[in-house]
Amino acid sequence: MSHHGNIAHMIEAHPSKGGASNDKLQSLLESLHECAAVCTGCADACLAEEMVADMRGCIRTDLDCADICAATARVAGRQTKPDAQILRAMVQACQTACQRCGSECDQHASKMEHCKICAEVCHRCEEACRSFLGA
Amino acid sequence: MSHHGNIAHMIEAHPSKGGASNDKLQSLLESLHECAAVCTGCADACLAEEMVADMRGCIRTDLDCADICAATARVAGRQTKPDAQILRAMVQACQTACQRCGSECDQHASKMEHCKICAEVCHRCEEACRSFLGA
Amino acid sequence: MSHHGNIAHMIEAHPSKGGASNDKLQSLLESLHECAAVCTGCADACLAEEMVADMRGCIRTDLDCADICAATARVAGRQTKPDAQILRAMVQACQTACQRCGSECDQHASKMEHCKICAEVCHRCEEACRSFLGA
Amino acid sequence: MSHHGNIAHMIEAHPSKGGASNDKLQSLLESLHECAAVCTGCADACLAEEMVADMRGCIRTDLDCADICAATARVAGRQTKPDAQILRAMVQACQTACQRCGSECDQHASKMEHCKICAEVCHRCEEACRSFLGA
Repeated sequence: MSHHGNIAHMIEAHPSKGGASNDKLQSLLESLHECAAVCTGCADACLAEEMVADMRGCIRTDLDCADICAATARVAGRQTKPDAQILRAMVQACQTACQRCGSECDQHASKMEHCKICAEVCHRCEEACRSFLGA
Repeated sequence: MSHHGNIAHMIEAHPSKGGASNDKLQSLLESLHECAAVCTGCADACLAEEMVADMRGCIRTDLDCADICAATARVAGRQTKPDAQILRAMVQACQTACQRCGSECDQHASKMEHCKICAEVCHRCEEACRSFLGA
Repeated sequence: MSHHGNIAHMIEAHPSKGGASNDKLQSLLESLHECAAVCTGCADACLAEEMVADMRGCIRTDLDCADICAATARVAGRQTKPDAQILRAMVQACQTACQRCGSECDQHASKMEHCKICAEVCHRCEEACRSFLGA
Repeated sequence: MSHHGNIAHMIEAHPSKGGASNDKLQSLLESLHECAAVCTGCADACLAEEMVADMRGCIRTDLDCADICAATARVAGRQTKPDAQILRAMVQACQTACQRCGSECDQHASKMEHCKICAEVCHRCEEACRSFLGA
């Protein structure tokens, strides 16, 4: 609650904004931060599973997706002197990472609650990236 | 809202937890993620200020605090085979970073809304670190 | 020296490798790590310039490029259960970031040694990404 | 080679330095960047081991150490408006992380070449942190 509020407030408090809101950006940033945190948690939960040997692909993709979402959140969150080419390339890479990680977690979602949550969050972030790029 | 929910859900969904909640950890993680995002935003907003030359110290401390909060969130978020020494050392470093960054932003809070928000978030995260270490 | 040696040794020591070298990957990783470090340094050096107001675009692009190179180094450095789609998308985004950041630093290279070094390193990393994608 | 050269060059090219070298800082930064890269590689190599279930603690500590070294490299690499309290707290946390990760990898060093390399690199980075703090 306060978290979402403050990300939104920071977007609005930027000198270039004059207090204007930016719903698309806010929605993207919230999805990216959530996905980075949840993928880090899913990698860790998979590592604790008894069948960890079967979770290697999921752990690896979770780690990749967490790193990519975190970097994308930083790039997209900066509003000073933006470079549209870098931003678009990075959001596209993030969309791909979220799609792939969501698909991987889908395969384990029926057995593992953490993969079920992670799949949902990844697919939502994938959609936020797509929506942002289409805007 | 969904963000907070999912961070909490991931903590509970970890194989070692059996669905138990962990309010101290959840509160710490939320504060750390928020502070990392807000400090990244404050550094960027300071950079766009007309008086950017006066904001060098704030930009630099924001960047440090963002990096430290993000790393601490990853370390604290992992529940598999935790190492108490690493965790404590890192949360202590984070408490220091948040205290220092909050103090720096306090100095600009009356003139810049982004520093006002950032100061509040830093001090809340500092307190979350202190509370976690005392638990 | 020891740095380069150990990145190469870690690639060869991976269980899937059987001690085989991978020159393309090694070269990419070295470029990515170097570029992440140098862009972080260039952003910081630009911030200390008397004409910091004129360096806003360079600082911002340096920060983006540092974040993207660091994330790409992590993704590319993982050899367990690789996902070619994520890897390619991320290296492409990194190539774009290095190209853009190199061009930005080129504009200041005649006046600032740090931008001259950063431009060279970015263009070398851009080429390492292109070469890796073409392999 | 070029990597080490350019990290050193960036330190010297900072406006506050006037071309002066800083051997302690350069040595710390090289150790931190190397350790972050090698720990990321060791976590990935451990994940591919047949006995991955026995490597959970090592993977987790590698991931922590990689995150902490990477953040410390960023903080220590910034020379504009440094905050000695943040820097010392972070280098101390990093020293602890490297000591713990080096000890963990020591236990597997006789059987796994990647843990042998990682243990050496962690202990060298631990020593670089200690030396920097004592300077």
